[in-house]
Amino acid sequence: MKLEKRVKKIFDKLEKKLDAIIIKNSAEPYIDNNFFYVTGLDKGIFEGSMAILHPDGDIELLVSELEAETAKKADATLHIYENKEDFDKLFKKHFPFLKKIGINSDGLSHKDFCKLTDRFPKAKFVDVSDALSKTRLVKDESEIEIVKKSCAIADKVMNAIPSILHEGMYEYEIAAEINYLMQKNGAEYPAFETISSFGKNTAEPHYTHGDTKLNKEDFVLFDFGARFRRYNSDITRTFVFGKAAEKQKEMHEVVLAAQEVGFETIKPGIKANEVHNAVNSFIDSGKFKGCFIHSTGHSLGLNIHDGGAGLSSDCDVELKENMIFTVEPGVYIPGFGGVRIEDDILIKKDGIELLTKSSRDFVEI
Amino acid sequence: MKLEKRVKKIFDKLEKKLDAIIIKNSAEPYIDNNFFYVTGLDKGIFEGSMAILHPDGDIELLVSELEAETAKKADATLHIYENKEDFDKLFKKHFPFLKKIGINSDGLSHKDFCKLTDRFPKAKFVDVSDALSKTRLVKDESEIEIVKKSCAIADKVMNAIPSILHEGMYEYEIAAEINYLMQKNGAEYPAFETISSFGKNTAEPHYTHGDTKLNKEDFVLFDFGARFRRYNSDITRTFVFGKAAEKQKEMHEVVLAAQEVGFETIKPGIKANEVHNAVNSFIDSGKFKGCFIHSTGHSLGLNIHDGGAGLSSDCDVELKENMIFTVEPGVYIPGFGGVRIEDDILIKKDGIELLTKSSRDFVEI
Repeated sequence: MKLEKRVKKIFDKLEKKLDAIIIKNSAEPYIDNNFFYVTGLDKGIFEGSMAILHPDGDIELLVSELEAETAKKADATLHIYENKEDFDKLFKKHFPFLKKIGINSDGLSHKDFCKLTDRFPKAKFVDVSDALSKTRLVKDESEIEIVKKSCAIADKVMNAIPSILHEGMYEYEIAAEINYLMQKNGAEYPAFETISSFGKNTAEPHYTHGDTKLNKEDFVLFDFGARFRRYNSDITRTFVFGKAAEKQKEMHEVVLAAQEVGFETIKPGIKANEVHNAVNSFIDSGKFKGCFIHSTGHSLGLNIHDGGAGLSSDCDVELKENMIFTVEPGVYIPGFGGVRIEDDILIKKDGIELLTKSSRDFVEI
Repeated sequence: MKLEKRVKKIFDKLEKKLDAIIIKNSAEPYIDNNFFYVTGLDKGIFEGSMAILHPDGDIELLVSELEAETAKKADATLHIYENKEDFDKLFKKHFPFLKKIGINSDGLSHKDFCKLTDRFPKAKFVDVSDALSKTRLVKDESEIEIVKKSCAIADKVMNAIPSILHEGMYEYEIAAEINYLMQKNGAEYPAFETISSFGKNTAEPHYTHGDTKLNKEDFVLFDFGARFRRYNSDITRTFVFGKAAEKQKEMHEVVLAAQEVGFETIKPGIKANEVHNAVNSFIDSGKFKGCFIHSTGHSLGLNIHDGGAGLSSDCDVELKENMIFTVEPGVYIPGFGGVRIEDDILIKKDGIELLTKSSRDFVEI
């Protein structure tokens, strides 16, 4: 895969010229997704590996012999090491000339930073985390293709849920079923800890799942995503198990309408917080005022919160074509329950394209 | 839970006196497991949260209001913040006196380190990652209890595998079944990407799973673990699907005997690399000389590679009572297949206790 464009875009966003950017992985879980972004690799762990990015778009990789085969799929010059001494030798041989070096201080451990300053005692280090985030916010064609597939897996699983549910099931059982179905359909992993909550637990946005049993007339809320070729999807639906009460219907109706407000507001040129403010004002103008207690969405990609931007009150990032965001308004009534509806959207020239396609209609199971 | 002992043990391992140790979480996946180690919390994500450890064993936590309820389960003084400004105010109010501060430079991002130096421009920062690792290497009673439960889940799932396998199944299908069964039995997550490999794929220790179909006479290798209350287990078994060839039996026999050599060598006072050397020499003394191509094991706990120690040629850590290690010799013949047998053991006063208990006998399915 030719990914020099990604690398060039990163350098284009820098204020000052640099000799190179170094992306360094530590041990799990301290693996920098920018390593996978610039190499396009979608397999492997690459603990301890390093990517050296050059302003002309070239990439050099230092990888262990254990992952050399996997690394060959990257369009990069490979330097294979057997052990730490090898790594040091290769490093000294190939990169003695670096004077101004970009690093991702968000993804680099402080220990690895100290090691870099030991290797390059005279070099100047510049934090390029902003340039990396900004580049990753706008997706290219191949990324959009992969996210679409990740969304399709999530859709398929969401559509299967109503036929799985039966009275007396535990929250954690459905979570296990959801994760199983995602993997059976090609996901490598759940994108994050799957949320499967029943009844009044749905009123807590951060609740994941426990041993609550499913009862008639319960709200049931499912929030999950697939990780496919390292890219994530993220979808939420709220159903009623049995016949819905009037209040449950009203809550669903308001959230669905609020999501539409979000969809209609999003377009290139609008700021992220304008979307949140529109959605929030809409909810606050009705009977569920004050019940929307989190932000409207977040950028999505290799990370669940990708590129450091959210549809939130404190984010004034300007929306651009080919950004991918979740739109997930909710209303939460402690002791009663909550409704959240979440979809993933791609920003197009004059609006949005829905990437998740599961029905958003109100469903009594 | 009273965890001041854990904190005191960390301070006891320091060469110089410090005013406090700061553990700071960044955003997922940059979450420092030491935060969970010192608080004993087993739920929650705690992005952005901070733990301040005092030499007398006291702990103070700065946590977001979104996770305040969860944080109450920790035996710590809580400072709850709503937003970044709050965090800064709380920080200034409660911790102006810190002059010598310990940090975990393995688990702290360089950006968060820079923020700390901004907050404490006159303070001296000391890397305490070694003291943290060494403390975590020796498990206390409550940790051992949890790991035992995590091992019991892995055992149960391993025992179920032979009855699941049938001709024509794909590797990734079994991986999905394994993960499903673990979660159904109480695991929060797979401890790591489950390895489910067939035939000659078993010769690659780093191979996870793909779309290879199961054929008669194949080696089948399963390496997985459960994450239970944040602690991990890690088990491997290799079976033959159908009637085994003589060579397959021989490989299994040698690996099983090599594992016994490991078990017999491990006791308090022995160095980690002595165990590896004994196991490696045993294999190299027979017909599979040179076929054991990785280390013999690793410490296990909150991390899969816990406390930075392994039963490997370059680790001279002295083994102590209440350390937990995997023992996982293997022999690999490229193009033919591999056998690995892995169990988790607890080091006792005069030997080991096996924590994983699945049968290690040779099995033809």
